[in-house]
Amino acid sequence: MTKGLIIVISAPSGAGKTTIYRELLSRMPGAVFSVSVTTRKSRKGEVDGRDYFFISEKKFRRMVSGGQLAEWARVHGHYYGTPKKQLRDAVSSGRDIVLDIDVQGGRKIRKQYLSGVFIFILPPSLKALEHRLRNRGQDDEQTIRVRLENARKEISYITDYDYLVINDKLNEAVEQARSIITAEHARISRLKNEISGFKKAQAGNA
Amino acid sequence: MTKGLIIVISAPSGAGKTTIYRELLSRMPGAVFSVSVTTRKSRKGEVDGRDYFFISEKKFRRMVSGGQLAEWARVHGHYYGTPKKQLRDAVSSGRDIVLDIDVQGGRKIRKQYLSGVFIFILPPSLKALEHRLRNRGQDDEQTIRVRLENARKEISYITDYDYLVINDKLNEAVEQARSIITAEHARISRLKNEISGFKKAQAGNA
Repeated sequence: MTKGLIIVISAPSGAGKTTIYRELLSRMPGAVFSVSVTTRKSRKGEVDGRDYFFISEKKFRRMVSGGQLAEWARVHGHYYGTPKKQLRDAVSSGRDIVLDIDVQGGRKIRKQYLSGVFIFILPPSLKALEHRLRNRGQDDEQTIRVRLENARKEISYITDYDYLVINDKLNEAVEQARSIITAEHARISRLKNEISGFKKAQAGNA
Repeated sequence: MTKGLIIVISAPSGAGKTTIYRELLSRMPGAVFSVSVTTRKSRKGEVDGRDYFFISEKKFRRMVSGGQLAEWARVHGHYYGTPKKQLRDAVSSGRDIVLDIDVQGGRKIRKQYLSGVFIFILPPSLKALEHRLRNRGQDDEQTIRVRLENARKEISYITDYDYLVINDKLNEAVEQARSIITAEHARISRLKNEISGFKKAQAGNA
């Protein structure tokens, strides 16, 4: 059995990451989401253990000091983090685990999980991103400005990533992401055990 | 426009490489075969410029001394080589070019084309390889022994390659090879120009 892959997907807000992410997982039987822990209150419709693990600040601090989080951050006064155990369990049981994470988090994961697969998603252009943000009608003008400014900053982290998927047509973007994961499973550097097994079988036959 | 990729596919005889290779190219519109030059006589059904470029030994020697071949070898008294010009033309015109080449040739290509994509194809096991060689009924016992022995030697070159595709089910093997090529096109290290273009567009907007 080959090991599971740690797959980090990052994108500016409005690049369509969440849609790609869901669609991608629906086409990857056996793969799992990484579910973050957070200290913020659950919102309507959110399910504990599916959307987040909702925990107390005390418990969060204990996880941090115990080295149980692969990365964590404070956003608008709340804490969010990625439990290491989930990553470890997925990898060792041969399941791919997908992390929906921002570029700062991605950089932290990269430093600890060198064999992870890092995918950055971009809209076809900044103009297209602005258009999407306006079209979804979810943000006011000020928020759109902030999101565009953030996107500009996030793009500068792109060289921390391995692959770039341009989300022009959703289906193509999802297939491209899936191809990346398929290809990474076929990397010879990940198949050392399989190959030495093959060679052994061969030596035995010789 | 992104550059074309140089894709080297190697496999032991009987691993099903030729079938994968043809099927793969039929699913890659715009991609081209690398056609070798050779000094051997054409066989019945072979077309000059499609199967090989059939050239004189004098011309072959001139190509070697002129540095026009990316790799060449002598097999059973005949010369075979890969013209550099084909590779260069394909890459610069944005077409992927696929090379069907043995492991020694693959190693030489690797040294000159660091950004090439190197795929090794194996049958599920040496037993399966033996089975296939017998089943196709093309070789006598002695030839089968030699082919199996060659396969054992060739497998030791596997670490020169990037990816391993196990040809168990043809369609899956072809899709895996195609995924590898799709993924390689999405590598950020190959998209430097596109990304700096995106960033420039962004700076202009700011």
